[in-house]
Amino acid sequence: MMRPADWRDKLRLYVVTDERPDADSLLSAVAAALAGGATAVQLRRKQDLGRRFVELGRAVRKLTREHGALFLVNDRVDVAFLVEADGVHVGQDDIACRDARRILGPDAIIGVSAETLAEARQAERDGADYLGVGAVFPTGSKPDAGLTGMGGLREIMRSVNVPVVAIGGITADNAAEVLACGVSGIAVVSAVMSAADPRAAAARLRTLVDEARAARA
Amino acid sequence: MMRPADWRDKLRLYVVTDERPDADSLLSAVAAALAGGATAVQLRRKQDLGRRFVELGRAVRKLTREHGALFLVNDRVDVAFLVEADGVHVGQDDIACRDARRILGPDAIIGVSAETLAEARQAERDGADYLGVGAVFPTGSKPDAGLTGMGGLREIMRSVNVPVVAIGGITADNAAEVLACGVSGIAVVSAVMSAADPRAAAARLRTLVDEARAARA
Ligand code: NI
Repeated sequence: MMRPADWRDKLRLYVVTDERPDADSLLSAVAAALAGGATAVQLRRKQDLGRRFVELGRAVRKLTREHGALFLVNDRVDVAFLVEADGVHVGQDDIACRDARRILGPDAIIGVSAETLAEARQAERDGADYLGVGAVFPTGSKPDAGLTGMGGLREIMRSVNVPVVAIGGITADNAAEVLACGVSGIAVVSAVMSAADPRAAAARLRTLVDEARAARA
Repeated sequence: MMRPADWRDKLRLYVVTDERPDADSLLSAVAAALAGGATAVQLRRKQDLGRRFVELGRAVRKLTREHGALFLVNDRVDVAFLVEADGVHVGQDDIACRDARRILGPDAIIGVSAETLAEARQAERDGADYLGVGAVFPTGSKPDAGLTGMGGLREIMRSVNVPVVAIGGITADNAAEVLACGVSGIAVVSAVMSAADPRAAAARLRTLVDEARAARA
């Protein structure tokens, strides 16, 4: 499957799903996020077994295609392959970047989570297409995630050349500070998925990203 | 990767790993089981993330190759691909048989767990190469597994044509009764993995299988 030519541009508002058990509710929130302007969706389902993960993945693939958004699957490379995702996002303990590419092929977009400068540099050497860097701020979605902080993010931005998506506790209130570091985009879970109006929340964040990128250009 | 010509014959003593955290201990037990006569190993690691699962898988692939044994990976089709397993074993909630084959190719050996006659017939229609049927007896290894029982096993044996490996609570004391049903092999977890001497335990079970198959021929 071909990588979209403008995939880097589609990292700008990157929504990661939560683990809610109800599929209809999950897909409604994803559809609302896309309608509001999310440019990428990562399906993250640590609790689901393969069959259900594939079912959800096929549904999210349909939604993201309708909106021209990127679709990444968290962790499960087999699921990413089967649902024709644009790629996979792997953590430090997941299947290695190069191994993921052996399954998905050279056009797959492979993102790697990096908490520290050392992890970020290693991921770049390993051929990651983008880095998910964080947590930038403390977060309730992944309470076990290490804190990179704004200082860590700035250090990584000075040291790597691959696109960086910042993640962890990003909201409309602190997005401008994050975007000022020169990141390609911001990733959010609860700021969109748990919002009373996920569409409006995505639209507000998308405006902030677009304004920051316009000011930078 | 080519399917071994005698793969059906290698279903006879099928050892499924336990979830012990220590890799050295796990690999020692697998090596002992193979030395004792295990003809197939299934690596089942529900607690491990992808990177570690791949590491263990590569080690088990090496051991099984040295002994000419089959190697199946439980659940994770991506891991099965990366470690060059002979195939994958999937449960009813895992990636579907046909989807697994899309990743692994036509030569991969795909086993499907079946607890009931309906599941067994469906798995055969879906193109499963063999069925793992059970639990034949109550078991501590998978306390949540449904009980198929000897009656259920006999019914399935009359109704499907694919090879059947019986699993669940099988020991040297009840193996003859199971083998008399005409199964291609028996699968065990604790009877070998938790044995004081896994090599001797595997050797004893292997003798029982070989005797039963010789008597049948
Ligand atoms: Ni829509």
